[in-house]
Amino acid sequence: MPSYTAPIRDLEFVLNELLDVPSSDIPGYAELEPSFTGAILEEAGKLARDVLAPLNASGDKEGCRLENGVVYTPKGFKEAFTAMKDGGWNGLDLPEEFGGQGLPYLMNAAVGEIFVAANMAFNMYQGLTHGAISAILAHGSEEQKATYLPRMVSLDWTGTMNLTEPHCGTDLGLLRTKAEPQADGSYKITGQKIFISAGDHDLSENVIHLVLAKAPGGGEGTKGISLFIVPKFMVNADGTLGARNGVSVGNIEEKMGIHGNATCVMNYDGATGYLIGELHKGMRAMFTMMNEARLGVGLQGYAQGEAAYQNAVAYAKDRLQGRAVTGAENPSGPADPLIVHPDIRRNLMDQKSFVEGARAFTLWGAMMIDAAHRKGDAEAEAMISLLTPVLKGFLTDKGFETAVNAQQVYGGHGYIEEWGMSQFARDARITMIYEGANGVQALDLVGRKLAQSGGKPVMAFFEMVKTFLKDNEGDEGLKADFLDPLKAASKDLQAAGMFFMQSGMKNPNAALAGSYDFMHLFGHVCLGLMWARMAKTARAALAAGTSDAAFYETKLATGRYYMKRQLPMTATHLARIQSGADPVMALPAEAF
Amino acid sequence: MPSYTAPIRDLEFVLNELLDVPSSDIPGYAELEPSFTGAILEEAGKLARDVLAPLNASGDKEGCRLENGVVYTPKGFKEAFTAMKDGGWNGLDLPEEFGGQGLPYLMNAAVGEIFVAANMAFNMYQGLTHGAISAILAHGSEEQKATYLPRMVSLDWTGTMNLTEPHCGTDLGLLRTKAEPQADGSYKITGQKIFISAGDHDLSENVIHLVLAKAPGGGEGTKGISLFIVPKFMVNADGTLGARNGVSVGNIEEKMGIHGNATCVMNYDGATGYLIGELHKGMRAMFTMMNEARLGVGLQGYAQGEAAYQNAVAYAKDRLQGRAVTGAENPSGPADPLIVHPDIRRNLMDQKSFVEGARAFTLWGAMMIDAAHRKGDAEAEAMISLLTPVLKGFLTDKGFETAVNAQQVYGGHGYIEEWGMSQFARDARITMIYEGANGVQALDLVGRKLAQSGGKPVMAFFEMVKTFLKDNEGDEGLKADFLDPLKAASKDLQAAGMFFMQSGMKNPNAALAGSYDFMHLFGHVCLGLMWARMAKTARAALAAGTSDAAFYETKLATGRYYMKRQLPMTATHLARIQSGADPVMALPAEAF
Repeated sequence: MPSYTAPIRDLEFVLNELLDVPSSDIPGYAELEPSFTGAILEEAGKLARDVLAPLNASGDKEGCRLENGVVYTPKGFKEAFTAMKDGGWNGLDLPEEFGGQGLPYLMNAAVGEIFVAANMAFNMYQGLTHGAISAILAHGSEEQKATYLPRMVSLDWTGTMNLTEPHCGTDLGLLRTKAEPQADGSYKITGQKIFISAGDHDLSENVIHLVLAKAPGGGEGTKGISLFIVPKFMVNADGTLGARNGVSVGNIEEKMGIHGNATCVMNYDGATGYLIGELHKGMRAMFTMMNEARLGVGLQGYAQGEAAYQNAVAYAKDRLQGRAVTGAENPSGPADPLIVHPDIRRNLMDQKSFVEGARAFTLWGAMMIDAAHRKGDAEAEAMISLLTPVLKGFLTDKGFETAVNAQQVYGGHGYIEEWGMSQFARDARITMIYEGANGVQALDLVGRKLAQSGGKPVMAFFEMVKTFLKDNEGDEGLKADFLDPLKAASKDLQAAGMFFMQSGMKNPNAALAGSYDFMHLFGHVCLGLMWARMAKTARAALAAGTSDAAFYETKLATGRYYMKRQLPMTATHLARIQSGADPVMALPAEAF
Repeated sequence: MPSYTAPIRDLEFVLNELLDVPSSDIPGYAELEPSFTGAILEEAGKLARDVLAPLNASGDKEGCRLENGVVYTPKGFKEAFTAMKDGGWNGLDLPEEFGGQGLPYLMNAAVGEIFVAANMAFNMYQGLTHGAISAILAHGSEEQKATYLPRMVSLDWTGTMNLTEPHCGTDLGLLRTKAEPQADGSYKITGQKIFISAGDHDLSENVIHLVLAKAPGGGEGTKGISLFIVPKFMVNADGTLGARNGVSVGNIEEKMGIHGNATCVMNYDGATGYLIGELHKGMRAMFTMMNEARLGVGLQGYAQGEAAYQNAVAYAKDRLQGRAVTGAENPSGPADPLIVHPDIRRNLMDQKSFVEGARAFTLWGAMMIDAAHRKGDAEAEAMISLLTPVLKGFLTDKGFETAVNAQQVYGGHGYIEEWGMSQFARDARITMIYEGANGVQALDLVGRKLAQSGGKPVMAFFEMVKTFLKDNEGDEGLKADFLDPLKAASKDLQAAGMFFMQSGMKNPNAALAGSYDFMHLFGHVCLGLMWARMAKTARAALAAGTSDAAFYETKLATGRYYMKRQLPMTATHLARIQSGADPVMALPAEAF
């Protein structure tokens, strides 16, 4: 059975040293002193290790069930949810006026990694609620906020997001769910929604659904879409619960993974809904929080990688099989531990160097979100907007790959469910699909984000890399191992961008055929930048005579691995991109 | 629900045109006229489509169960197994004296792709039997052959391979199962074996286990291992079944996939076993058939990719979502089919170009095995020995990747078990692990095969590529699209081999740290060679005025895609390899 220990020292390294959070002028950051954030991470780590992680495998095995219209979560989830509520974890970064603690979003992300790594399916009940709260905060009326937020922040009520229908996922313009205006200002919502995570369950008193539907008069396509609040139980004027609303669970989907989360078919049958935000501007309302939502999914990807990695390391140290080619390292035992073998090392280093780079990238992204929201920093907003599809697409593809690699360390035992490694891969797989499939992320990146504001954000990114390289060019200890490879990778990225500009003008397919490779190329450059920065930080600590030299030396060695063995991928991505549209689009559809 | 249609035209292209099988001087090949092999493939295709494929998803869902010591396979498997028996499919390439049809192994591979793609878990009952038959054919006494083979060839009895124990998989020197000699010449076998595919079931009257165990006097490690035949039911002198032997099923493992195949814990409790082959030379006996067994697993990998690809194509043509960026292609419909989108194309082309290259590689490998066995061709034997770890490791990694990519085309529906795409990925995952995990394949390739016979086989491989390039250097139609990229990739492979020779002398870890990348680099060169040859064949057909021009144009376009978009990976693999042992081995074990 797998176990999980929160990587607190690594999280602290990123928060306190790499990002130097307490020195930031983002409102609320001064409060994030190491002793304060450390205590939060410790508490989250305990809950994760003692309560959430032990329910991960059992929740996967048992799954959710629908009986007479009622959804039951796996054994132990209710008690764990109570612990989550009692700890006030959901409100960490939510406004104090609704019962939250008002900390920066950054802390939600740091704690989120811990909870998601311990039990992704479980944490989604809270995660979806958090998303719904964000939408109500941004677009709800004062009355709506007062009605729903206090009880959602406290997790007495939970939330969902209802977008997908059987015939449309990405292309929401096709959606058919109808909203008919009523005399009292409410709407009757009718239609079917599918793939609704945490759609219903036995963890909360009420479920507040946010539903996209078409109200009359909005026109064709996505223009006609509005966003509605549809509570499972009607809420009386005094805040007590009234009658059951006209929304019910049609089915629970059987999925490849995240079995502990109820993915529901939701049937709306003239359910009472309340418009949130402006009429016919539902798409905008739903997607206001898209950067956070997508960063959160990227985080899920690498967090599954982290959990899988921890267990792969333990197995590689424990399992005795074969002898080191350079001579026995455990001569008194029947064989050496797996970790002596170079290819096992290669595999573990791939995992470790990715996860640590991904963590830095994600928390840096979260800091930009805070800068945008708390400081009104338009440049940070533009930068995180550009990087969001990279965070989501690259970190989930690589997170899944990491979980698969960790499973591989176990050999045959990795394929047996009892050992738990299959679950990390199966759970991570969804992160590549939901919240915009990764192909859609690549399209968003190349088709929209690159050209945004005349290309200013991407220019700013290159400028940032250039400045970093210039600022450190005298540091011989960084040059060969970190600066040179980062420079080469960044050049590949620029060349790819140039190719898109030149050939995409003539033929948009030339850019889109390379979009997936561009997303990965960009991801590697971002992780290369993170590793170069972490190396600088680690070297500074070593130069200052830290008492924890082994930690910083390990950081440097792990970073060197990433630069040497992962960054060379940028050349292949560039070569593919520069092959243009022809190889990709050559065949007529009937030739497939 | 997925469906499957045997890709007969593509198989025929490889057999009749690329490999030109009827013209080969390998004994038995002259018989393989297109009309004859075509009829066999057609019949196999019907069985696959009508009987096996419809049981694939239901077998996955239901799985196997153990009740009171008896293993039951999923509903329908018994009837399907009877159809497989009645068709005589198991004996296709087995000797006529034991009831087979004596055709070349090549035909077993071609038909095998069809059956495995339709239902991998089901086909393993036959596949394991085939492996056990091969071992008995190679090492059994005349009496053992007469006793077991006729009924195993007919599938009245099935077979298994028992190697792994709880504490040892790769490192068989650690095994503990004991064989105690008895006065009558038999042995009492005692111990526990795990991960025994098709270990027990309700499909056959008897199960013939081939078991590795240690008999006294053999010395330490793998030297002391012998191979034994242990029947589930004792066989009387007249061939009728006698008492139950002392072997029982301890458990059926719950796995990530191949649920339709019973993966058993087998307990041997003083079971009667019969030595097969020489005492203390069991490892050699078990591994005689390794090339076929591993080629068979590589085939499973790409066959799952083929099945998944077929369904991804169907979905991409059917599902309407979004509009082509170059203008609506289905203007009368609500949206365009997915297949108009460049990134969907990119994904489908990755799948298609891999599967077709893998098929050519595998059938070429099967032809070398026939040349070795039927013609005593030592060079073919050495070549297939070298290429076996590449076939197994590369094709299973890429086959799994292909299944995952196919699943991605379905978006959210790909994650729902009802749609069947998850199963292809879950089933394909095991192929990277069993029959020697892919890291072990890489070790075999770099640690043993490269240096075999003073490097002669790998030199012969390079010579073959060189000769092909030279023979076709005047063909301008091949040059830029096929010959130049193949040449560049082959140079990368040579440079990697050179690096291993130079640095591996000083430090074996320098070679082994790059072994996994070398296996993939080699795989890309092999598929590049296959595509260059297929392009040559296709161009010849077009030049000859074929009536099926679209087929050959499609082959050329698919090949161009592989050369342009997959072969550039060789540069990255080379860069990683040349970074040597340091990045991989830098950390002490406790730093993980």
